[in-house]
Formats: sequence, structure tokens, C-alpha cells
Amino acid sequence: MTSEPASPRITVRRLPKRAAYDPATLHAILDEGLVCHLGFVHDGQPFVIPTNYARWGDFLLFHGAAGSRLARALRDGVPVCATVTLIDGLVLARSAFHHSTNYRSVVILGKAQEITDRAERLAALRAFVEHVLPGRWDEVRPPSENELKGTLVLKLPIREASAKMRSGPAVDDEEDYALPCWAGVIPLSLSAGAPEPDARLAAGTEPGERIAAYRRVRG
Amino acid sequence: MTSEPASPRITVRRLPKRAAYDPATLHAILDEGLVCHLGFVHDGQPFVIPTNYARWGDFLLFHGAAGSRLARALRDGVPVCATVTLIDGLVLARSAFHHSTNYRSVVILGKAQEITDRAERLAALRAFVEHVLPGRWDEVRPPSENELKGTLVLKLPIREASAKMRSGPAVDDEEDYALPCWAGVIPLSLSAGAPEPDARLAAGTEPGERIAAYRRVRG
Repeated sequence: MTSEPASPRITVRRLPKRAAYDPATLHAILDEGLVCHLGFVHDGQPFVIPTNYARWGDFLLFHGAAGSRLARALRDGVPVCATVTLIDGLVLARSAFHHSTNYRSVVILGKAQEITDRAERLAALRAFVEHVLPGRWDEVRPPSENELKGTLVLKLPIREASAKMRSGPAVDDEEDYALPCWAGVIPLSLSAGAPEPDARLAAGTEPGERIAAYRRVRG
Repeated sequence: MTSEPASPRITVRRLPKRAAYDPATLHAILDEGLVCHLGFVHDGQPFVIPTNYARWGDFLLFHGAAGSRLARALRDGVPVCATVTLIDGLVLARSAFHHSTNYRSVVILGKAQEITDRAERLAALRAFVEHVLPGRWDEVRPPSENELKGTLVLKLPIREASAKMRSGPAVDDEEDYALPCWAGVIPLSLSAGAPEPDARLAAGTEPGERIAAYRRVRG
């Protein structure tokens, strides 16, 4: 974690020892996440919208219906903030004050650009599907010309970006360790249940191991 | 889900049939979530920061160190957007285009206010701890005067707010249902693992059932 922050405004000032700026750390968090919270400003009011994304090299990809306000605002180059957060655990301390959350998050500032090249658009849409489930792209019907036409595909450089993380046990005040109160961490993770097959599955289709034993942790 | 949106700018325009505005729906999502993504604007740039929160009646509560830029900006009444998102599943369709995510989210626009009354501050901090783990407040050391002094407590009215949700199976194009491709939903939820006891637990302290069998779904 030797990289330096790309700008003062992305530099983590609160608890800076929890920060990181190196690509390996940023990419690992982005590759594990499923939903990004995308912030933009309209008439002075911030809006934060959850949206799917994928990492594609040094870019974060977004897509949206060509008629979507959010996708059009991104295409028009409004300043955005893309934030991905993974919740890793509840930190139960002996005092109310020292309760905390274990987490890993990435914040990216910048402006998105539309991807217009046809081959690049297809590669980006492939990255979307593969981000959710590696190997899935080759199993499904690829986008039709109409579907391609109706979709805006956008990329945001992962350049002005920081990660922030907390891990490990509770940190209590020294005099509180004697309190007769259970303390520790409840680990949390986004876990998959048993796949629910579609009611109209074609005969003989099986989910396969990647779906039956889906795990979000990647890399 | 009969309530009407409080303003045009909070009205869901994209896929409005997925929207809801009634308090019961909003509260259920907010009560299940653990982390809120808080958006604010600084020098024309949106920032989206993950933060803990709690619902307290018709308010969303935040807190922060008195020196934190975010907490002070909130106190100063900048316009904010607070978004809470729960991921419920991956929707695997037979075409790349119709892949989707099942989710429930709440978006709240408005301005926060500092809570200054001492009793109200304590009640709000109690709500924070109880939001994470009901019953926890009575087990832990309450905040000291110094801890209280160092903490900004803020409330945001849940008024200009909307929920948006997707649930259920994939919706494929009619001609794709015959494809020999597994389709369905992989359910996802934030699940707890076995609690990790602190290395310095006082003798005889036990986690109890609420910790040992922690489940996030509430209500």
C-alpha cells in the first residue's frame, strides 16, 4: 500500500491509517462488490443512486437505458462520485462509544465517458455479466442490435480513488476490559442461498457448480 | 403502498412500478440496512461516503466525531442524499440484456439538523446501538461526558423519500425461453458467521443467543 493519493480532495483525512491508494487494494474491493452508489448533483441537490457496475482494467463501467436521466447525465460528463462498500462485520465493544463496523470501501471521483465503439461496447457488456458470474457470457444469448442501441455504456477512470478499511477486534478503553460484557466481532458477508430455478426452464438445463455454489468473494 | 411522493424530485421516473412511498415500506428497508451512503456536494463535486445510521421514528440518525468534515457539513445544513440498499439476489436470465439484480433501496433527500438536547442525544445514541443489535445498550458502558462532548448527533427527516425494489424471477423475451440455458435467481443476503470472541474477554462472559444466532432481517 505504497501508492499516494491522486489529489487532495480524495485524500482520506479522518483516520488516515485506514486508507489505501494502491490499485491492488482498490481492485480487490471493486471486484468483490455488486452494487455501486453513484452520486451526482442536480440543481444543487446531491442524488445517490444504487447501480450495477463492473471493473474493466482501470475503469469502472456503468450502463443504463438510453432514456435514463442518470445515464444521460453521466454521458454529459457531470462530476460523479462512485462508492462501493463491503460490510465485513459488527464490532461489539464493551462501551457504546467504541462499537464499530468492519468494512472495506472505495471512493472514486471523476467524470464518465460514453463508450461508442461497437467492439468496445460489447467487451464492456461482457465484463458486466462476467463481473456477476464468471463464465456466464458464453452461456447466454448475446445482445441484439436493438438491445445494443438502447443501452448507454459508460466508463469512469479509477484514478482519483481511495480505499478505506477497518478490520480486527474492538478497541476498548483500558478500564473497560474488566467489564462483564461479551465483546467481539460478528463476521458478516453477502452469502448465497440455494438457487431458485426459473418456472419455465428448458428441459435438462442444470445450474452448474458456479451457480449452485455461488460465492461472492473473488480474485 | 398508497402514499404519494413528497416532491417531483424524489419521484421515481424510471420503472415507476418498482417505486413505493409509504412509511411501512421505507421503514422496513431502513431497519434492515446497516450502512447508508450519504451524498453531499463540496465545490461542485459530489461525495458519497458510507456511514452508519439508525432509524428513529420518522428520522434517520447519523453521528460523527465533532471534528469530522462530513459531520460538520451535515450540521451546517448542506443538502444531502441518504441512500440505503439491500441486495436480495442475482437474476440470471437467458439473455445478457435481461440479467438483473433483486434489491430494495431507499433514497432520502433533505437537510440534517444537529440534536443538541442531552436527553435526546442519549436516546439517539441508544437507537444507534439498538439498530445494530437490539438489547445491546443495556449491556454496555454508556457514553461518558467526554464521549458525548466529542460526538455530533444529527437527524434527517424521512419525508422526501422513495423506495425502489425489484423482486421475482427473470423476465426473458418470449423466444428465449426455449434456450438450453439455466435461468433463475441466486438469493443473496448479508449473513452472520460464528461470533469471534475478543482475546481479552472477562471470565464467564457469554455471547448470548442474539449474538450467537445473529440475523440481520428485522421487524
